Amino acid sequence: MVPLGAKQDQLEAWLDFAGALVLAIAITLLVLDLRVPVRDTLHGSLTTALAEEWPAYAAYVTSFLVIGIIWVNHHTVFELVGRVDRILLFLNLLLLMSVAAIPFITSLLSEYLLAGGANARTAALVYSAVMLAMSCGFAALYTYVAWRPALLADGVDPVAVRASIVRFSAVGILLYVATLVVALFSAPLCLLAHLLIALYYCVQQIRPGRRSAEA
Amino acid sequence: MVPLGAKQDQLEAWLDFAGALVLAIAITLLVLDLRVPVRDTLHGSLTTALAEEWPAYAAYVTSFLVIGIIWVNHHTVFELVGRVDRILLFLNLLLLMSVAAIPFITSLLSEYLLAGGANARTAALVYSAVMLAMSCGFAALYTYVAWRPALLADGVDPVAVRASIVRFSAVGILLYVATLVVALFSAPLCLLAHLLIALYYCVQQIRPGRRSAEA
Amino acid sequence: MVPLGAKQDQLEAWLDFAGALVLAIAITLLVLDLRVPVRDTLHGSLTTALAEEWPAYAAYVTSFLVIGIIWVNHHTVFELVGRVDRILLFLNLLLLMSVAAIPFITSLLSEYLLAGGANARTAALVYSAVMLAMSCGFAALYTYVAWRPALLADGVDPVAVRASIVRFSAVGILLYVATLVVALFSAPLCLLAHLLIALYYCVQQIRPGRRSAEA
Amino acid sequence: MVPLGAKQDQLEAWLDFAGALVLAIAITLLVLDLRVPVRDTLHGSLTTALAEEWPAYAAYVTSFLVIGIIWVNHHTVFELVGRVDRILLFLNLLLLMSVAAIPFITSLLSEYLLAGGANARTAALVYSAVMLAMSCGFAALYTYVAWRPALLADGVDPVAVRASIVRFSAVGILLYVATLVVALFSAPLCLLAHLLIALYYCVQQIRPGRRSAEA
Repeated sequence: MVPLGAKQDQLEAWLDFAGALVLAIAITLLVLDLRVPVRDTLHGSLTTALAEEWPAYAAYVTSFLVIGIIWVNHHTVFELVGRVDRILLFLNLLLLMSVAAIPFITSLLSEYLLAGGANARTAALVYSAVMLAMSCGFAALYTYVAWRPALLADGVDPVAVRASIVRFSAVGILLYVATLVVALFSAPLCLLAHLLIALYYCVQQIRPGRRSAEA
Repeated sequence: MVPLGAKQDQLEAWLDFAGALVLAIAITLLVLDLRVPVRDTLHGSLTTALAEEWPAYAAYVTSFLVIGIIWVNHHTVFELVGRVDRILLFLNLLLLMSVAAIPFITSLLSEYLLAGGANARTAALVYSAVMLAMSCGFAALYTYVAWRPALLADGVDPVAVRASIVRFSAVGILLYVATLVVALFSAPLCLLAHLLIALYYCVQQIRPGRRSAEA
Repeated sequence: MVPLGAKQDQLEAWLDFAGALVLAIAITLLVLDLRVPVRDTLHGSLTTALAEEWPAYAAYVTSFLVIGIIWVNHHTVFELVGRVDRILLFLNLLLLMSVAAIPFITSLLSEYLLAGGANARTAALVYSAVMLAMSCGFAALYTYVAWRPALLADGVDPVAVRASIVRFSAVGILLYVATLVVALFSAPLCLLAHLLIALYYCVQQIRPGRRSAEA
Repeated sequence: MVPLGAKQDQLEAWLDFAGALVLAIAITLLVLDLRVPVRDTLHGSLTTALAEEWPAYAAYVTSFLVIGIIWVNHHTVFELVGRVDRILLFLNLLLLMSVAAIPFITSLLSEYLLAGGANARTAALVYSAVMLAMSCGFAALYTYVAWRPALLADGVDPVAVRASIVRFSAVGILLYVATLVVALFSAPLCLLAHLLIALYYCVQQIRPGRRSAEA
């Protein structure tokens, strides 16, 4: 992709950078979901009031891990990219749009986690649906890059990249679809499922794919 | 532009970076406009309450696309820049000032989108006016650079840049003036117009201008 | 400054980067001071309600320009720096601490700008005092660097740097002291004075000092 | 750590960058804990109302210094790192998770600093516990790197790094445990203890370790 004139164009590095900014801000804005009990309206002890906020802490930890993992994987994908076209720009924007919404769904789920009934179910469904949209956005970005060898950086093996997508993105989508089902039964279990998926992805990263590349 | 002493001055790269920071923060702060219905004051189901918030989601998506597009174009312009003077610094600051206000106007429009009457019109007019100010700020920056060949990076063709401005910035200003007219009739239609403009700019980017450069 | 081991240490570039982050976030957080009138509690028209918020817009523009100018000057100073010691780290942290407080004082001044009497005076005094602290922090940082030639980048002329400080920082401190006096008489005039100082600094930048260096 | 293909992998530089982003955002979000007294509900003068908010200012300054110091040290550690593995990624994420929570605990402590009794104690204990978690996270990250010479950058002396850890991280953990004890007696004294620790670390930095490296 050539600019109007001379300077070396490294739009893929810039997208990596821009994505890192949005992800960093989203991950840090999660703290705004942790609310301090107002002193004047506090009934009972602060300890009790804080303890009752445990859904907010659980949702904070879960969403923090989720965004942290997307962050690393977003960076990994853009290390494979050597050229950028408009569709990639647009797919990246869609992915960031779902990630940037995570502080909202985190706040929603922690507010209604213990509400029970239809409202807790709604909150868990919304949380899972946005996470699913995010994983689909990631898979779309990754797949688009993998099937456009012209976009890959020099020396990147498209076959290894595609094998990695099947193992990585397809599994992610299936797992997030499963959380939608869990959401129908129990909001707290649904949050636990998201935490377990995040921990799973701390281990199962895109990078193992290089083994194929080395093989 | 030479500093007080020795180090290589790359103020245009720094402005690109600084602008990216402000745009990333503004785009991510949009999520603060998505409000979680408070559990204690919720009437009816959460599903209904969330569904009634659709103007907030529509405004979030629209403003997210708008900022995303400005972001890419801001980066593109600074790739053409090789030197920076004070007027460019000041024009850039004015542009960022209007972009940084987008979370506010987004919140305003989503709050009053369905209010009807004069208040919905006011919100839509303010939204469109700030977007117009933003596109004028962008056009001013871009035009200033294009008519100061001394500021362009080595090898950039000023003629191609200027041709791109007419197609790109002038059209943008006309489109945003048109949204002011739409705002007089219907706030929801006005938001839709902004969404369509954003989608249009996902396709029609500054970069096609390079074709002229190559021709 | 040598690290525990091998890698090239460029702490001055890192401080420039870290400062840019804090300044970008502070400048963008200013938008949170612009409040959307709540629809349910709106008396009269939205146009009137928004027009009554003009102190918030005036304070937004003023603080935005102030932070924008500090930002450029912070960057300029760190271009002169070649080595970093602990005192410089600490002075930089103090400067950032005052800058990061600007969204707070901006909100304070816009809330009480038209309150009249002692409260408007208090708000204007606090605004001016933090701005004065910021300019003192900047002057301390700049002066410290200028009088430690070992910290300057290779080829930077300490004499030119020091001459620039007198013209630049000393004038800034005097101007901000003057706003404290204006604050005693009128909060709106005080805000206007800050706006004029910001516009003055858009023209009178550190960089003219290079003229001396070239002379 | 080799990616799926070709590009030079510098994940340690990227983690330094990503950490800097989170720390910059967390440090700047502290300003949101400074609240402007609402004009309509103000009893007495604004001066009095602001003066009564001194716990918020004291907590702001303390937490700002704490994050500022972690920031520099986080950067210093990643300058020693030459390669990154998954455990390091995960430890870094845990560290950032505790740092990102600092705006919350700062707000909590300033709200309850003068509440007296059990509630002030709870707030001070939570503040100290998160700070302890943060220092443990930092020590875990630093220790992990130091005992994996394969992760250190070329030319870094593992012995000097390990000696630095004992002096630096172990002392930090002990100091933060001590603040837990102080928290049991007095919340204001506990905040003062955190301020003194922060000032201590402005002087006692990781970098002195290089002396051993040079010896």
